[in-house]
Amino acid sequence: MDLNALRNISYGMYIISSNKGSQFNAQIANTVFQITNEPIIIAISINKKNFTHEYIESSQRFSISILEENTPLDFIGKFGFKSGRTENKFINIKSKVLSSGCPVVLDFSLAYLEAKVVNKFDCSSHTIFLGEITESEISKSGKVMTYAYYHQIKGGTTPKTAPTFMKNETKGSVSMQKYKCKICGYIYDPKIGDPDNGIKADTLFEDIPNTWVCPVCGADKSQFEKEE
Amino acid sequence: MDLNALRNISYGMYIISSNKGSQFNAQIANTVFQITNEPIIIAISINKKNFTHEYIESSQRFSISILEENTPLDFIGKFGFKSGRTENKFINIKSKVLSSGCPVVLDFSLAYLEAKVVNKFDCSSHTIFLGEITESEISKSGKVMTYAYYHQIKGGTTPKTAPTFMKNETKGSVSMQKYKCKICGYIYDPKIGDPDNGIKADTLFEDIPNTWVCPVCGADKSQFEKEE
Repeated sequence: MDLNALRNISYGMYIISSNKGSQFNAQIANTVFQITNEPIIIAISINKKNFTHEYIESSQRFSISILEENTPLDFIGKFGFKSGRTENKFINIKSKVLSSGCPVVLDFSLAYLEAKVVNKFDCSSHTIFLGEITESEISKSGKVMTYAYYHQIKGGTTPKTAPTFMKNETKGSVSMQKYKCKICGYIYDPKIGDPDNGIKADTLFEDIPNTWVCPVCGADKSQFEKEE
Repeated sequence: MDLNALRNISYGMYIISSNKGSQFNAQIANTVFQITNEPIIIAISINKKNFTHEYIESSQRFSISILEENTPLDFIGKFGFKSGRTENKFINIKSKVLSSGCPVVLDFSLAYLEAKVVNKFDCSSHTIFLGEITESEISKSGKVMTYAYYHQIKGGTTPKTAPTFMKNETKGSVSMQKYKCKICGYIYDPKIGDPDNGIKADTLFEDIPNTWVCPVCGADKSQFEKEE
């Protein structure tokens, strides 16, 4: 039994948006797939704890922005590692509201789809929502970001609420390298983590969300270098 | 509304195998995805008309072989465009039988998973089967074949029973080029197709399954050249 086999399953990277009346929320997702072609039904898998789940239940609508390969990690972090319960994710990004009232994120998006929920299936921690396509547009041509690219090339990580999160994701064969903040000299020790800011012990520096900042001076991750 | 937006959804390429007692069958699929991580549940979407659907219903087991990028088109054609009702797909390929009795295809496979069905959802033409992982092995390292690679680089096509089949798939901007069999001189005219052998009118030569052979002499597609 080698559960790393699961890492060979292919996914894309998407932003799922929905609304509750005039309130908007959005989150990163990697499980989007077409189920039937007549009618065209797509499925998404959403963690019941996610704020977006509540919005989809309310409006019965969701949109899917298909992210391009060069989407910056901090843009993904904004939608993947922060909750809409404490932050309006639609501030400072390009988006639009479709005729149904459902929002759609346009930044770094090659194409988008909107769907009306026609069925849902309970899968313990997650719900599979089935949606019939109501709108679909291609914004520009380009390469899509795959989940493999996000992990292997961009060094991205997976939120604990994702279907594909693996418990050992933060423990690889990589040594527990310390990193030092070039601005203030703070040393990040992966054995300790940064528990005050939600980073548990045994978290590699590479696995800290890009939204994390130096707990001392507030510098972002790009300001850190390997500690010799 | 531009349904080509759907083509930007990322998938992999897989062979789903199952058994009915000691009988085996297998088919190509592109919709495999993890749904939850505790327990690890994966989902597949299978057309109800497919022979494999009947086998999964019977044994409540299925295996997934994750195909590598260099899988030959004719190998995919064997599992994607032929039915197990008329052909034993396990002849002349490397495979093994797991302790449950479920077969798994090993040729061109980077890794495999086996699952026991724990739930299923009816989606009109298709069934989503949810399976709890019972076995998983990595056979070798390498690049997985994505659905995009299969279509864009390998020039592969989609069976009509696939969730992602699009009606206009056979009508592109490419001209209706005729092809001639170098062995017997038969000319394939895309405006006519080869209806006796299941190739409808308006099917480009490039879109004919690689399992198709010259209706006159039985030569395979590689024996055809463009007709000036």
